[in-house]
Amino acid sequence: MRRFVIGQAKNLIDQTRRRPRPHNNNIRLLSLLASDPIPVSSSRFFSDMTGSDSSSSLPVTLDSINPNVLKCEYAVRGEIVNIAQKLQDDLKINKDAYPFDEIIYCNIGNPQSLSQQPITFFREVLALCSHTALLDRDETHALFSADSIARAWKILDQIPGKATGAYSHSQGIKGLRDAIAAGIEARDGLPADPNDIFMTDGASPGVHMMMQLLISSEKDGILCPIPQYPLYSASIALHGGSLVLSEENQRDIVDFCKKEGLVLLADEVYQENVYVPDKKFHSFKKVARSMGHGEKDISLVSFQSISKGYYGECGKRGGYMEVTGFTSDVREQIYKVASVNLCSNISGQILASLVMSPPKPGDESYESYIAEKEGILSSMARRAKTLEEALNKLEGITCNRAEGAMYLFPCINLPQKAIAAAEAAKTAPDTFYCKRLLNATGIVVVPGSGFRQVPGTWHFRCTILPQEDKIPAIVNRLTEFHKSFMDEFRD
Amino acid sequence: MRRFVIGQAKNLIDQTRRRPRPHNNNIRLLSLLASDPIPVSSSRFFSDMTGSDSSSSLPVTLDSINPNVLKCEYAVRGEIVNIAQKLQDDLKINKDAYPFDEIIYCNIGNPQSLSQQPITFFREVLALCSHTALLDRDETHALFSADSIARAWKILDQIPGKATGAYSHSQGIKGLRDAIAAGIEARDGLPADPNDIFMTDGASPGVHMMMQLLISSEKDGILCPIPQYPLYSASIALHGGSLVLSEENQRDIVDFCKKEGLVLLADEVYQENVYVPDKKFHSFKKVARSMGHGEKDISLVSFQSISKGYYGECGKRGGYMEVTGFTSDVREQIYKVASVNLCSNISGQILASLVMSPPKPGDESYESYIAEKEGILSSMARRAKTLEEALNKLEGITCNRAEGAMYLFPCINLPQKAIAAAEAAKTAPDTFYCKRLLNATGIVVVPGSGFRQVPGTWHFRCTILPQEDKIPAIVNRLTEFHKSFMDEFRD
Repeated sequence: MRRFVIGQAKNLIDQTRRRPRPHNNNIRLLSLLASDPIPVSSSRFFSDMTGSDSSSSLPVTLDSINPNVLKCEYAVRGEIVNIAQKLQDDLKINKDAYPFDEIIYCNIGNPQSLSQQPITFFREVLALCSHTALLDRDETHALFSADSIARAWKILDQIPGKATGAYSHSQGIKGLRDAIAAGIEARDGLPADPNDIFMTDGASPGVHMMMQLLISSEKDGILCPIPQYPLYSASIALHGGSLVLSEENQRDIVDFCKKEGLVLLADEVYQENVYVPDKKFHSFKKVARSMGHGEKDISLVSFQSISKGYYGECGKRGGYMEVTGFTSDVREQIYKVASVNLCSNISGQILASLVMSPPKPGDESYESYIAEKEGILSSMARRAKTLEEALNKLEGITCNRAEGAMYLFPCINLPQKAIAAAEAAKTAPDTFYCKRLLNATGIVVVPGSGFRQVPGTWHFRCTILPQEDKIPAIVNRLTEFHKSFMDEFRD
Repeated sequence: MRRFVIGQAKNLIDQTRRRPRPHNNNIRLLSLLASDPIPVSSSRFFSDMTGSDSSSSLPVTLDSINPNVLKCEYAVRGEIVNIAQKLQDDLKINKDAYPFDEIIYCNIGNPQSLSQQPITFFREVLALCSHTALLDRDETHALFSADSIARAWKILDQIPGKATGAYSHSQGIKGLRDAIAAGIEARDGLPADPNDIFMTDGASPGVHMMMQLLISSEKDGILCPIPQYPLYSASIALHGGSLVLSEENQRDIVDFCKKEGLVLLADEVYQENVYVPDKKFHSFKKVARSMGHGEKDISLVSFQSISKGYYGECGKRGGYMEVTGFTSDVREQIYKVASVNLCSNISGQILASLVMSPPKPGDESYESYIAEKEGILSSMARRAKTLEEALNKLEGITCNRAEGAMYLFPCINLPQKAIAAAEAAKTAPDTFYCKRLLNATGIVVVPGSGFRQVPGTWHFRCTILPQEDKIPAIVNRLTEFHKSFMDEFRD
């Protein structure tokens, strides 16, 4: 049989050698894929090959790769962050070369990288599910809470063969989806179907999945609030129902989607990050249903992630999407897309089920769980307030109050001189400001240009996540820098 | 500021309402994305919208989704598996309705779903990294091996802030990539650069990443061994260097790629699954370098996964790709694609580093680690042999010896009557056979048609992974079924 296989490969090579070479190709790929078939390669077989680009001995150039990749921008991990990483490396060797002793990453919602501690109960369950032999040992009872042990058993009983190392159903382990659906029901006071839950490695892969399914050509439309930006859309989603105005706004959006026949992709990952006691998260599904729009009326996808909330388990890559209002044949296609990567990682699946079904009153972990949760959320609220007030004190800066999410998005009224200096440096004025800020203070923020801000306005995004004891120093460094920046460029 | 935001959203809605509707669109999407920007949506803003398909109150139909998604086939999780899952559910309630009492999944390389136990050392380290508070407790020393505790500390020291819950560098945690590079160096006897390592959630996402980067249009060519199929390509990769013939074949492929200017994507996930003592895995990088082709001569991507090997940690979704022979500007684009999903899951990253740096002689876990590893691999070898011999005894079936990987791919010489019956049932003859097999025995295999077998030949793929004590029963059921099938259709 091997002879046959190699015969095949040889024939393939020979045939290809004999084939004439068109000149309109630019990528040449030989893939020897030994793992499960990859659709993009298995879906068709191209045999027309071309000679390599004579200008280089290597086949791939920027001109030959997918132009969409070149177009794509990802500001939160863009130029400024690369500079910051280089600075951080250099700091280790040249401590005295800089006016700061550490890089503070305020560019991305990554709380545990800034010393936020994980929720103990979640990690206890995760450890027990990672090494199930622990469950048979007496010493374990001294190390783990009774309810984390009970929960680990419950989860293992829901996994065929208790195999946390096996691929699961492509939508995720059924028992975990049951727990998530129950959590959604408790949250919304409405039924939720475990079969509508697709578990993902975080919200982003879920969004990619839906985009891949729904975008069939460049003609297809994606309508986003402009600036299409985390904070704004988070604000809309979060504050929905918090003021009449905003609930009206959520209803407007639902109405609009219904009338125009739009699919509503609702990123609801900040549902736990509401810092104003009298305000409450309302899901778009709840709003739509309250308006009488059911399964057959509106196509709605809600994304949730374990990376946000009070838990901030970014590194675990877990989340889910709740998919409602699609025909069964389209649902089958969503399932097929989900199945191409087989399944999301099981640790992330377990955590996603835990955040939607945390300890309950009476459970051994309940008190400490609530203390940890409230401690994180109240601290975030204080940090948001302190930073916002400090920013609003600065000349030419206006910053809205953060009642939710993890970010501030101050608007900077930059002097003409600064804008001119930025132009001279061939960079956007807000990027110019953020680079200056980084080099002077070690604070990493993201220029508003990365988020399609309103033309002619300049912003930066700053997370509220540095630990509380560091906030005063950050405020001082920020204030000092801004003053000297304005002194340098004031018109 | 919120007023401003909602103003924005309202304007957007109003503008859109006023806009004329072209008729060439088919997807309508409103995305309220609160998490980090998704390039596919952030890269452009489409505002032209169309009325909804009048034939349905829901906006999305099969005609309106991405046609590539419709085209894509994924046999290992296809029709047969769906039937099997329904049978499994029905078995719970109608025990006596079937001639078998369980479904045996031989469709996919998912060893732990078939009771293969994980490697203890790997899971000990994973548990300690999942709940790091354990490292401060005395009881832990009674529960964990000394080297797993030491390894956990080492790994935590490599993670900034010891934060296993934080997003990492988009290529993966640097210290873990160092360990992987060291493992590759030990394997190949050649230098490996941690900066060439991109950690992924398994091999598939890595392959998708490269395909997304390299495929710029339908004109681009992907050359695969035909049938492009795990076993064959695995055989080529695995047996490379095991016979002169095959090493020659590997050299042919490298030569061919060099001459034609091809990118060589080498899936090397089965490098540990070699069952023949006198044979050894040789990486394509090693072969290419031994031929004198360096970084500047050949573009080579090697994929590795924690889902295969003797560890079979499919559910943890971990792996890496080693990317060599690309210009720095193209490398930057690969990094950008990697950064779009921020990072692969940290548990998977940790496991990927562990499989490339397992316990060494002298470590407390070494003996038990080797015993577990050898136990799994030798059992796989016995199972492969037993199944292959049993299949070769069956009328009209020829099966090659499996010297590696996890699969058998027997060729069935189907009687004309069976082919006619399949045609009458509007299904491919091998699918017809596999469905009959499933319904008669509960054994799930994948028809060869899913893998582009040579036209006119019929095969099925069967893993060698059912636990050893079940193999005799499987052989009996398979033999019995095949006899009656042939009796029914023999010409």
